[in-house]
Amino acid sequence: MSDDVIESKAFLQLAESELKVDQIEKDVEEYRLSKMKPLYVERDLIIEKIPDFWKIVLSQHSDFANYLRASDFTYVDCIEDVKVNWETVDKFSITIKFSGIEGDFEAQTVTKHFSRQRVIDDGNTGRKGNEEEEEEEEGELLSSEVVDIKWPNKYDKINPDKIEDKKSNEGKKNYRTGMKSLFAWFRWTGLKPGKEFPHGDSFVTLFVEDLYPYCVKYYTEAQRDLEDENDDTGSEGHSSEGELELENDDEPPAKKTKI
Amino acid sequence: MSDDVIESKAFLQLAESELKVDQIEKDVEEYRLSKMKPLYVERDLIIEKIPDFWKIVLSQHSDFANYLRASDFTYVDCIEDVKVNWETVDKFSITIKFSGIEGDFEAQTVTKHFSRQRVIDDGNTGRKGNEEEEEEEEGELLSSEVVDIKWPNKYDKINPDKIEDKKSNEGKKNYRTGMKSLFAWFRWTGLKPGKEFPHGDSFVTLFVEDLYPYCVKYYTEAQRDLEDENDDTGSEGHSSEGELELENDDEPPAKKTKI
Repeated sequence: MSDDVIESKAFLQLAESELKVDQIEKDVEEYRLSKMKPLYVERDLIIEKIPDFWKIVLSQHSDFANYLRASDFTYVDCIEDVKVNWETVDKFSITIKFSGIEGDFEAQTVTKHFSRQRVIDDGNTGRKGNEEEEEEEEGELLSSEVVDIKWPNKYDKINPDKIEDKKSNEGKKNYRTGMKSLFAWFRWTGLKPGKEFPHGDSFVTLFVEDLYPYCVKYYTEAQRDLEDENDDTGSEGHSSEGELELENDDEPPAKKTKI
Repeated sequence: MSDDVIESKAFLQLAESELKVDQIEKDVEEYRLSKMKPLYVERDLIIEKIPDFWKIVLSQHSDFANYLRASDFTYVDCIEDVKVNWETVDKFSITIKFSGIEGDFEAQTVTKHFSRQRVIDDGNTGRKGNEEEEEEEEGELLSSEVVDIKWPNKYDKINPDKIEDKKSNEGKKNYRTGMKSLFAWFRWTGLKPGKEFPHGDSFVTLFVEDLYPYCVKYYTEAQRDLEDENDDTGSEGHSSEGELELENDDEPPAKKTKI
Protein backbone atom coordinates (compact mmCIF):
# COMPACT_ATOMS: atom_id res chain seq x y z
CA MET A 1 0.00 0.00 0.00
CA SER A 2 1.16 3.55 -0.67
CA ASP A 3 1.65 5.96 2.24
CA ASP A 4 -1.46 7.89 1.19
CA VAL A 5 -3.62 4.79 1.28
CA ILE A 6 -2.23 3.75 4.65
CA GLU A 7 -2.99 7.23 5.98
CA SER A 8 -6.57 7.37 4.64
CA LYS A 9 -7.20 3.96 6.12
CA ALA A 10 -5.81 5.18 9.46
CA PHE A 11 -8.23 8.14 9.49
CA LEU A 12 -11.13 5.82 8.89
CA GLN A 13 -10.02 3.54 11.71
CA LEU A 14 -9.56 6.57 13.97
CA ALA A 15 -13.13 7.70 13.30
CA GLU A 16 -14.39 4.21 14.14
CA SER A 17 -12.34 4.19 17.31
CA GLU A 18 -13.86 7.55 18.35
CA LEU A 19 -17.35 6.09 17.95
CA LYS A 20 -16.34 3.30 20.30
CA VAL A 21 -15.05 5.91 22.78
CA ASP A 22 -18.43 7.69 22.70
CA GLN A 23 -20.18 4.41 23.33
CA ILE A 24 -17.93 3.67 26.30
CA GLU A 25 -18.54 7.16 27.73
CA LYS A 26 -22.30 6.53 27.61
CA ASP A 27 -21.82 3.13 29.14
CA VAL A 28 -19.68 4.60 31.95
CA GLU A 29 -22.31 7.28 32.61
CA GLU A 30 -24.98 4.58 32.93
CA TYR A 31 -22.76 2.62 35.27
CA ARG A 32 -22.15 5.70 37.42
CA LEU A 33 -25.85 6.47 37.54
CA SER A 34 -26.79 2.95 38.57
CA LYS A 35 -24.37 3.24 41.49
CA MET A 36 -25.29 6.80 42.46
CA LYS A 37 -29.09 6.64 42.29
CA PRO A 38 -29.69 4.70 45.52
CA LEU A 39 -27.15 6.91 47.29
CA TYR A 40 -28.89 10.09 46.11
CA VAL A 41 -32.21 8.83 47.46
CA GLU A 42 -30.54 8.20 50.82
CA ARG A 43 -28.86 11.61 50.75
CA ASP A 44 -32.06 13.49 49.87
CA LEU A 45 -33.67 12.12 53.05
CA ILE A 46 -30.74 13.32 55.18
CA ILE A 47 -30.70 16.76 53.56
CA GLU A 48 -34.37 17.26 54.38
CA LYS A 49 -33.42 17.28 58.06
CA ILE A 50 -30.96 20.17 57.67
CA PRO A 51 -32.68 23.57 57.77
CA ASP A 52 -31.93 26.00 54.93
CA PHE A 53 -29.64 23.47 53.23
CA TRP A 54 -30.61 24.45 49.66
CA LYS A 55 -30.86 28.15 50.43
CA ILE A 56 -27.23 28.00 51.60
CA VAL A 57 -26.07 25.89 48.63
CA LEU A 58 -27.73 28.16 46.06
CA SER A 59 -26.29 31.32 47.59
CA GLN A 60 -22.81 29.75 47.84
CA HIS A 61 -22.56 28.79 44.16
CA SER A 62 -20.77 31.54 42.26
CA ASP A 63 -22.44 30.88 38.91
CA PHE A 64 -26.05 30.34 39.92
CA ALA A 65 -26.84 34.04 40.39
CA ASN A 66 -25.66 34.86 36.85
CA TYR A 67 -28.69 33.14 35.38
CA LEU A 68 -31.33 35.13 37.25
CA ARG A 69 -32.73 38.61 37.76
CA ALA A 70 -31.91 40.28 41.08
CA SER A 71 -35.59 40.36 42.06
CA ASP A 72 -35.80 36.54 41.61
CA PHE A 73 -33.79 36.03 44.78
CA THR A 74 -36.83 36.71 46.96
CA TYR A 75 -38.21 33.49 45.49
CA VAL A 76 -34.88 31.61 45.38
CA ASP A 77 -34.99 32.04 49.16
CA CYS A 78 -38.30 30.14 49.07
CA ILE A 79 -36.59 27.06 47.56
CA GLU A 80 -36.84 24.40 50.26
CA ASP A 81 -35.76 21.41 48.29
CA VAL A 82 -34.20 20.39 44.98
CA LYS A 83 -34.19 16.85 43.64
CA VAL A 84 -32.93 15.40 40.39
CA ASN A 85 -34.37 12.08 39.32
CA TRP A 86 -32.83 10.14 36.45
CA GLU A 87 -34.85 7.58 34.54
CA THR A 88 -31.86 7.06 32.26
CA VAL A 89 -28.73 9.13 31.65
CA ASP A 90 -30.60 11.07 28.98
CA LYS A 91 -34.02 11.26 30.57
CA PHE A 92 -34.40 13.00 33.89
CA SER A 93 -36.45 15.51 35.88
CA ILE A 94 -35.76 18.31 38.34
CA THR A 95 -38.19 18.83 41.21
CA ILE A 96 -38.15 22.13 43.08
CA LYS A 97 -40.17 22.71 46.24
CA PHE A 98 -41.04 26.34 47.03
CA SER A 99 -42.43 27.64 50.29
CA GLY A 100 -45.00 30.43 49.89
CA ILE A 101 -45.10 34.14 50.69
CA GLU A 102 -48.41 35.33 52.17
CA GLY A 103 -50.32 37.40 49.66
CA ASP A 104 -47.65 37.15 46.94
CA PHE A 105 -46.51 33.65 46.13
CA GLU A 106 -48.12 30.25 46.51
CA ALA A 107 -46.26 27.32 48.07
CA GLN A 108 -45.82 24.68 45.34
CA THR A 109 -43.71 21.76 44.18
CA VAL A 110 -42.93 21.68 40.47
CA THR A 111 -41.32 18.90 38.43
CA LYS A 112 -39.80 19.67 35.05
CA HIS A 113 -38.88 16.85 32.66
CA PHE A 114 -35.92 16.79 30.28
CA SER A 115 -34.51 14.59 27.59
CA ARG A 116 -31.27 14.61 25.66
CA GLN A 117 -31.12 13.41 22.07
CA ARG A 118 -28.36 12.93 19.56
CA VAL A 119 -28.95 15.25 16.63
CA ILE A 120 -27.14 15.84 13.40
CA ASP A 121 -26.37 19.48 12.84
CA ASP A 122 -27.19 20.05 9.18
CA GLY A 123 -24.84 22.99 8.97
CA ASN A 124 -27.44 25.63 9.88
CA THR A 125 -24.84 27.33 12.03
CA GLY A 126 -23.54 29.93 9.63
CA ARG A 127 -20.81 27.68 8.33
CA LYS A 128 -21.18 26.45 4.77
CA GLY A 129 -19.79 23.13 3.73
CA ASN A 130 -18.93 22.42 0.11
CA GLU A 131 -20.34 19.59 -1.94
CA GLU A 132 -17.60 17.05 -1.45
CA GLU A 133 -17.51 17.04 2.30
CA GLU A 134 -20.77 17.91 3.97
CA GLU A 135 -20.10 19.52 7.31
CA GLU A 136 -22.58 17.50 9.28
CA GLU A 137 -21.77 17.55 12.93
CA GLU A 138 -23.25 15.32 15.54
CA GLY A 139 -24.31 16.97 18.75
CA GLU A 140 -26.76 16.58 21.58
CA LEU A 141 -29.97 18.52 22.02
CA LEU A 142 -31.43 18.99 25.47
CA SER A 143 -35.14 19.67 25.40
CA SER A 144 -37.92 19.92 27.92
CA GLU A 145 -41.67 20.10 28.37
CA VAL A 146 -43.42 23.29 29.46
CA VAL A 147 -44.59 22.92 33.06
CA ASP A 148 -47.07 25.14 34.91
CA ILE A 149 -45.86 27.22 37.81
CA LYS A 150 -47.78 29.91 39.67
CA TRP A 151 -45.92 33.20 39.30
CA PRO A 152 -45.71 35.66 42.20
CA ASN A 153 -48.40 38.36 42.18
CA LYS A 154 -45.62 40.96 42.29
CA TYR A 155 -44.63 39.75 38.78
CA ASP A 156 -48.08 40.46 37.27
CA LYS A 157 -46.62 43.24 35.12
CA ILE A 158 -43.96 41.01 33.55
CA ASN A 159 -45.84 37.68 33.66
CA PRO A 160 -46.07 36.71 29.95
CA ASP A 161 -49.52 35.18 30.51
CA LYS A 162 -50.88 38.40 31.96
CA ILE A 163 -49.46 40.84 29.44
CA GLU A 164 -52.32 41.58 27.06
CA ASP A 165 -50.55 44.07 24.86
CA LYS A 166 -47.38 42.50 23.41
CA LYS A 167 -47.11 44.99 20.54
CA SER A 168 -46.27 48.28 22.26
CA ASN A 169 -42.69 49.01 23.31
CA GLU A 170 -43.74 48.90 26.95
CA GLY A 171 -45.45 45.53 26.44
CA LYS A 172 -42.49 44.06 24.59
CA LYS A 173 -40.12 45.28 27.27
CA ASN A 174 -42.18 43.73 30.06
CA TYR A 175 -42.49 40.47 28.13
CA ARG A 176 -38.75 40.29 27.64
CA THR A 177 -38.07 41.06 31.30
CA GLY A 178 -40.47 38.34 32.37
CA MET A 179 -38.88 35.83 30.02
CA LYS A 180 -35.58 36.33 31.83
CA SER A 181 -37.00 35.46 35.24
CA LEU A 182 -36.61 32.13 37.03
CA PHE A 183 -40.31 31.41 36.43
CA ALA A 184 -39.87 31.61 32.66
CA TRP A 185 -37.32 28.80 32.83
CA PHE A 186 -40.18 26.42 33.73
CA ARG A 187 -41.63 27.00 30.24
CA TRP A 188 -38.24 26.60 28.54
CA THR A 189 -38.31 23.89 25.86
CA GLY A 190 -34.90 24.21 24.22
CA LEU A 191 -36.59 24.26 20.82
CA LYS A 192 -36.90 28.01 20.25
CA PRO A 193 -33.46 29.51 20.77
CA GLY A 194 -33.49 33.28 21.22
CA LYS A 195 -37.16 33.24 22.22
CA GLU A 196 -36.99 31.54 25.59
CA PHE A 197 -35.36 31.89 28.99
CA PRO A 198 -31.70 32.67 28.13
CA HIS A 199 -29.12 29.91 28.58
CA GLY A 200 -31.88 27.55 29.70
CA ASP A 201 -29.82 24.50 28.77
CA SER A 202 -26.76 25.56 30.79
CA PHE A 203 -29.08 26.28 33.71
CA VAL A 204 -30.32 22.68 33.53
CA THR A 205 -26.76 21.39 33.30
CA LEU A 206 -25.82 23.52 36.30
CA PHE A 207 -28.44 21.71 38.40
CA VAL A 208 -27.86 18.24 37.02
CA GLU A 209 -24.08 18.08 36.71
CA ASP A 210 -22.98 20.49 39.40
CA LEU A 211 -25.42 21.78 42.04
CA TYR A 212 -27.19 18.52 42.75
CA PRO A 213 -24.20 16.11 42.66
CA TYR A 214 -21.92 18.49 44.59
CA CYS A 215 -24.46 20.16 46.91
CA VAL A 216 -22.72 18.84 50.04
CA LYS A 217 -19.43 20.30 48.85
CA TYR A 218 -21.04 23.74 48.37
CA TYR A 219 -22.80 23.52 51.73
CA THR A 220 -19.52 22.62 53.47
CA GLU A 221 -17.68 25.44 51.70
CA ALA A 222 -20.31 27.92 52.85
CA GLN A 223 -19.94 26.74 56.45
CA ARG A 224 -16.15 26.98 56.21
CA ASP A 225 -16.32 30.50 54.79
CA LEU A 226 -18.44 31.44 57.79
CA GLU A 227 -15.87 29.92 60.18
CA ASP A 228 -13.02 31.68 58.38
CA GLU A 229 -14.77 35.00 58.83
CA ASN A 230 -14.86 34.35 62.57
CA ASP A 231 -11.27 33.14 62.70
CA ASP A 232 -8.66 34.97 60.67
CA THR A 233 -5.59 34.22 62.77
CA GLY A 234 -3.87 32.18 60.05
CA SER A 235 -0.05 32.27 59.98
CA GLU A 236 2.05 31.03 57.10
CA GLY A 237 4.69 28.44 57.84
CA HIS A 238 7.45 27.81 55.32
CA SER A 239 10.05 25.10 55.30
CA SER A 240 13.39 25.47 53.61
CA GLU A 241 15.64 22.49 52.98
CA GLY A 242 19.01 23.17 51.47
CA GLU A 243 17.96 23.11 47.84
CA LEU A 244 17.64 26.23 45.75
CA GLU A 245 14.23 27.84 45.94
CA LEU A 246 12.82 28.41 42.45
CA GLU A 247 11.12 31.63 41.58
CA ASN A 248 7.63 30.55 40.62
CA ASP A 249 6.58 33.99 39.60
CA ASP A 250 5.07 32.81 36.32
CA GLU A 251 1.38 33.04 35.91
CA PRO A 252 0.12 29.61 37.01
CA PRO A 253 -1.47 27.80 34.06
CA ALA A 254 -5.24 27.57 34.07
CA LYS A 255 -6.45 24.80 36.33
CA LYS A 256 -8.40 21.94 34.86
CA THR A 257 -11.47 21.07 36.85
CA LYS A 258 -12.45 17.48 36.85
CA ILE A 259 -16.17 16.94 37.13
CA MET B 1 -35.08 13.84 69.83
CA SER B 2 -34.51 17.59 69.90
CA ASP B 3 -33.98 19.48 66.65
CA ASP B 4 -30.29 19.96 67.50
CA VAL B 5 -29.72 16.26 67.96
CA ILE B 6 -31.55 15.46 64.72
CA GLU B 7 -29.37 18.01 62.90
CA SER B 8 -26.06 16.74 64.34
CA LYS B 9 -27.04 13.22 63.41
CA ALA B 10 -27.87 14.40 59.89
CA PHE B 11 -24.40 15.97 59.50
CA LEU B 12 -22.80 12.71 60.55
CA GLN B 13 -24.90 10.77 58.05
CA LEU B 14 -24.06 13.28 55.35
CA ALA B 15 -20.34 12.82 55.98
CA GLU B 16 -20.77 9.05 55.71
CA SER B 17 -22.72 9.46 52.50
CA GLU B 18 -19.92 11.61 51.02
CA LEU B 19 -17.42 8.84 51.76
CA LYS B 20 -19.63 6.46 49.82
CA VAL B 21 -19.73 8.95 46.93
CA ASP B 22 -15.91 9.05 46.87
CA GLN B 23 -15.82 5.27 46.80
CA ILE B 24 -18.26 5.17 43.89
CA GLU B 25 -16.22 7.77 41.99
CA LYS B 26 -13.12 5.58 42.34
CA ASP B 27 -15.10 2.55 41.32
CA VAL B 28 -16.47 4.35 38.24
CA GLU B 29 -12.96 5.46 37.28
CA GLU B 30 -11.77 1.87 37.46
CA TYR B 31 -14.70 0.74 35.36
CA ARG B 32 -13.98 3.41 32.75
CA LEU B 33 -10.32 2.45 32.65
CA SER B 34 -11.08 -1.25 32.20
CA LYS B 35 -13.22 -0.35 29.18
CA MET B 36 -10.86 2.24 27.72
CA LYS B 37 -7.52 0.45 28.05
CA PRO B 38 -7.95 -2.02 25.18
CA LEU B 39 -9.31 0.77 23.01
CA TYR B 40 -6.30 3.01 23.76
CA VAL B 41 -3.93 0.21 22.72
CA GLU B 42 -5.82 -0.12 19.44
CA ARG B 43 -5.84 3.66 18.93
CA ASP B 44 -2.11 4.04 19.61
CA LEU B 45 -1.39 1.64 16.75
CA ILE B 46 -3.56 3.67 14.36
CA ILE B 47 -2.02 6.99 15.43
CA GLU B 48 1.48 5.67 14.68
CA LYS B 49 0.48 5.56 11.01
CA ILE B 50 -0.44 9.26 10.88
CA PRO B 51 2.61 11.48 10.31
CA ASP B 52 3.10 14.40 12.72
CA PHE B 53 0.00 13.43 14.70
CA TRP B 54 1.43 14.41 18.11
CA LYS B 55 3.25 17.46 16.79
CA ILE B 56 -0.13 18.76 15.53
CA VAL B 57 -1.98 17.84 18.74
CA LEU B 58 0.61 19.51 20.99
CA SER B 59 0.64 22.70 18.94
CA GLN B 60 -3.17 22.81 18.83
CA HIS B 61 -3.68 22.64 22.57
CA SER B 62 -4.01 26.16 23.97
CA ASP B 63 -2.66 25.35 27.43
CA PHE B 64 0.29 23.12 26.65
CA ALA B 65 2.61 25.97 25.67
CA ASN B 66 2.04 27.76 28.99
CA TYR B 67 4.07 25.13 30.79
CA LEU B 68 7.22 25.45 28.74
CA ARG B 69 9.99 27.83 27.77
CA ALA B 70 9.89 29.17 24.20
CA SER B 71 13.19 27.46 23.34
CA ASP B 72 11.73 24.07 24.38
CA PHE B 73 9.58 24.01 21.26
CA THR B 74 12.50 22.96 19.11
CA TYR B 75 12.38 19.72 21.10
CA VAL B 76 8.57 19.53 21.37
CA ASP B 77 8.73 19.28 17.58
CA CYS B 78 10.85 16.16 18.09
CA ILE B 79 8.04 14.41 19.97
CA GLU B 80 6.99 11.54 17.73
CA ASP B 81 4.77 9.67 20.09
CA VAL B 82 3.04 9.96 23.46
CA LYS B 83 1.53 7.03 25.32
CA VAL B 84 -0.12 6.79 28.71
CA ASN B 85 -0.26 3.39 30.32
CA TRP B 86 -2.37 2.79 33.40
CA GLU B 87 -1.62 -0.09 35.73
CA THR B 88 -4.45 1.11 37.97
CA VAL B 89 -6.35 4.41 38.15
CA ASP B 90 -3.70 5.73 40.55
CA LYS B 91 -0.61 4.15 39.07
CA PHE B 92 0.39 5.02 35.53
CA SER B 93 3.23 6.05 33.27
CA ILE B 94 3.77 8.44 30.39
CA THR B 95 6.08 7.40 27.56
CA ILE B 96 7.43 10.04 25.21
CA LYS B 97 9.37 9.20 22.06
CA PHE B 98 11.72 11.90 20.77
CA SER B 99 13.43 11.94 17.40
CA GLY B 100 16.96 13.35 17.47
CA ILE B 101 18.67 16.45 16.11
CA GLU B 102 22.10 15.83 14.59
CA GLY B 103 24.84 17.20 16.83
CA ASP B 104 22.43 18.56 19.44
CA PHE B 105 19.89 16.09 20.73
CA GLU B 106 19.83 12.33 20.94
CA ALA B 107 16.80 10.32 19.78
CA GLN B 108 15.34 8.60 22.85
CA THR B 109 12.22 7.11 24.38
CA VAL B 110 11.62 7.97 28.02
CA THR B 111 9.02 6.51 30.40
CA LYS B 112 8.11 8.38 33.56
CA HIS B 113 6.14 6.64 36.33
CA PHE B 114 3.55 8.26 38.57
CA SER B 115 1.41 7.34 41.53
CA ARG B 116 -1.42 9.08 43.30
CA GLN B 117 -1.95 8.61 47.03
CA ARG B 118 -4.57 9.74 49.48
CA VAL B 119 -2.92 11.97 52.07
CA ILE B 120 -4.22 13.74 55.12
CA ASP B 121 -3.27 17.38 55.17
CA ASP B 122 -2.18 18.05 58.75
CA GLY B 123 -3.00 21.71 58.46
CA ASN B 124 0.50 22.76 57.35
CA THR B 125 -1.11 25.09 54.83
CA GLY B 126 -1.05 28.32 56.78
CA ARG B 127 -4.45 27.75 58.28
CA LYS B 128 -4.51 26.97 62.00
CA GLY B 129 -7.24 24.81 63.45
CA ASN B 130 -8.20 25.04 67.09
CA GLU B 131 -8.12 22.17 69.57
CA GLU B 132 -11.72 21.07 69.31
CA GLU B 133 -11.92 20.66 65.57
CA GLU B 134 -8.67 19.76 63.92
CA GLU B 135 -8.67 20.99 60.36
CA GLU B 136 -7.47 17.79 58.80
CA GLU B 137 -8.27 17.71 55.15
CA GLU B 138 -8.00 14.72 52.91
CA GLY B 139 -6.38 15.25 49.57
CA GLU B 140 -4.45 13.41 46.91
CA LEU B 141 -0.75 13.66 46.28
CA LEU B 142 0.65 12.93 42.85
CA SER B 143 4.29 11.89 42.95
CA SER B 144 6.81 10.51 40.50
CA GLU B 145 10.25 8.96 40.18
CA VAL B 146 13.17 10.84 38.68
CA VAL B 147 13.92 9.45 35.22
CA ASP B 148 17.06 10.04 33.14
CA ILE B 149 16.78 11.96 29.92
CA LYS B 150 19.62 13.20 27.75
CA TRP B 151 19.40 17.00 27.53
CA PRO B 152 20.20 18.83 24.28
CA ASN B 153 23.80 20.06 23.99
CA LYS B 154 22.44 23.54 23.42
CA TYR B 155 21.15 23.44 27.01
CA ASP B 156 24.58 22.79 28.53
CA LYS B 157 24.61 26.21 30.19
CA ILE B 158 21.26 25.66 31.96
CA ASN B 159 21.50 21.87 32.42
CA PRO B 160 21.41 21.47 36.24
CA ASP B 161 23.81 18.51 36.05
CA LYS B 162 26.39 20.55 34.20
CA ILE B 163 26.27 23.73 36.25
CA GLU B 164 29.24 23.48 38.60
CA ASP B 165 28.82 26.78 40.35
CA LYS B 166 25.36 27.01 41.90
CA LYS B 167 26.29 29.77 44.37
CA SER B 168 26.93 32.78 42.13
CA ASN B 169 24.02 34.86 40.86
CA GLU B 170 24.80 33.74 37.31
CA GLY B 171 24.87 30.08 38.39
CA LYS B 172 21.59 30.37 40.30
CA LYS B 173 19.95 32.09 37.39
CA ASN B 174 21.01 29.39 34.94
CA TYR B 175 19.92 26.66 37.33
CA ARG B 176 16.49 28.22 37.72
CA THR B 177 16.10 28.65 33.98
CA GLY B 178 17.01 25.01 33.41
CA MET B 179 14.57 23.84 36.05
CA LYS B 180 11.76 25.47 34.08
CA SER B 181 12.54 23.55 30.88
CA LEU B 182 10.66 20.51 29.61
CA PHE B 183 13.67 18.33 30.44
CA ALA B 184 13.51 19.28 34.13
CA TRP B 185 10.00 17.86 34.27
CA PHE B 186 11.47 14.38 33.86
CA ARG B 187 13.15 14.79 37.26
CA TRP B 188 10.01 16.18 38.88
CA THR B 189 8.98 14.15 41.96
CA GLY B 190 6.12 16.19 43.39
CA LEU B 191 7.78 16.00 46.81
CA LYS B 192 9.74 19.26 46.81
CA PRO B 193 7.28 22.05 45.96
CA GLY B 194 8.96 25.29 44.94
CA LYS B 195 12.20 23.48 44.09
CA GLU B 196 11.17 21.55 41.01
CA PHE B 197 9.73 22.07 37.53
CA PRO B 198 6.82 24.49 38.14
CA HIS B 199 3.27 23.10 38.06
CA GLY B 200 4.68 19.63 37.38
CA ASP B 201 1.51 18.00 38.69
CA SER B 202 -0.83 19.97 36.42
CA PHE B 203 1.46 19.15 33.51
CA VAL B 204 1.00 15.44 34.27
CA THR B 205 -2.77 15.90 34.59
CA LEU B 206 -2.78 17.73 31.27
CA PHE B 207 -1.31 14.66 29.56
CA VAL B 208 -3.29 12.05 31.42
CA GLU B 209 -6.75 13.63 31.64
CA ASP B 210 -6.77 15.83 28.57
CA LEU B 211 -4.11 15.49 25.86
CA TYR B 212 -4.00 11.70 25.70
CA PRO B 213 -7.73 10.91 26.06
CA TYR B 214 -8.81 13.73 23.72
CA CYS B 215 -5.89 13.74 21.27
CA VAL B 216 -8.13 12.86 18.31
CA LYS B 217 -10.41 15.78 19.15
CA TYR B 218 -7.43 18.19 19.15
CA TYR B 219 -6.08 16.72 15.94
CA THR B 220 -9.46 17.10 14.24
CA GLU B 221 -9.82 20.68 15.51
CA ALA B 222 -6.41 21.54 14.09
CA GLN B 223 -7.39 20.11 10.68
CA ARG B 224 -10.68 22.03 10.77
CA ASP B 225 -8.92 25.30 11.66
CA LEU B 226 -6.73 24.76 8.63
CA GLU B 227 -9.77 24.20 6.41
CA ASP B 228 -11.49 27.28 7.85
CA GLU B 229 -8.47 29.38 6.97
CA ASN B 230 -8.81 28.23 3.37
CA ASP B 231 -12.54 28.76 3.30
CA ASP B 232 -13.97 31.84 4.96
CA THR B 233 -17.11 32.28 2.93
CA GLY B 234 -19.44 31.62 5.89
CA SER B 235 -22.79 33.43 5.86
CA GLU B 236 -25.07 33.68 8.85
CA GLY B 237 -28.57 32.38 8.37
CA HIS B 238 -31.26 33.39 10.82
CA SER B 239 -34.79 32.14 11.05
CA SER B 240 -37.60 34.24 12.47
CA GLU B 241 -40.92 32.68 13.31
CA GLY B 242 -43.61 34.98 14.64
CA GLU B 243 -42.56 34.95 18.26
CA LEU B 244 -40.83 37.86 19.93
CA GLU B 245 -37.05 37.75 19.67
CA LEU B 246 -35.45 38.15 23.11
CA GLU B 247 -32.47 40.39 23.59
CA ASN B 248 -29.80 38.04 24.81
CA ASP B 249 -27.35 40.80 25.43
CA ASP B 250 -26.40 39.57 28.88
CA GLU B 251 -22.96 38.24 29.45
CA PRO B 252 -23.34 34.48 28.88
CA PRO B 253 -22.66 32.59 32.12
CA ALA B 254 -19.35 30.80 32.35
CA LYS B 255 -19.44 27.46 30.59
CA LYS B 256 -18.88 24.30 32.54
CA THR B 257 -16.54 21.89 30.86
CA LYS B 258 -17.24 18.27 31.36
CA ILE B 259 -14.20 16.08 31.17
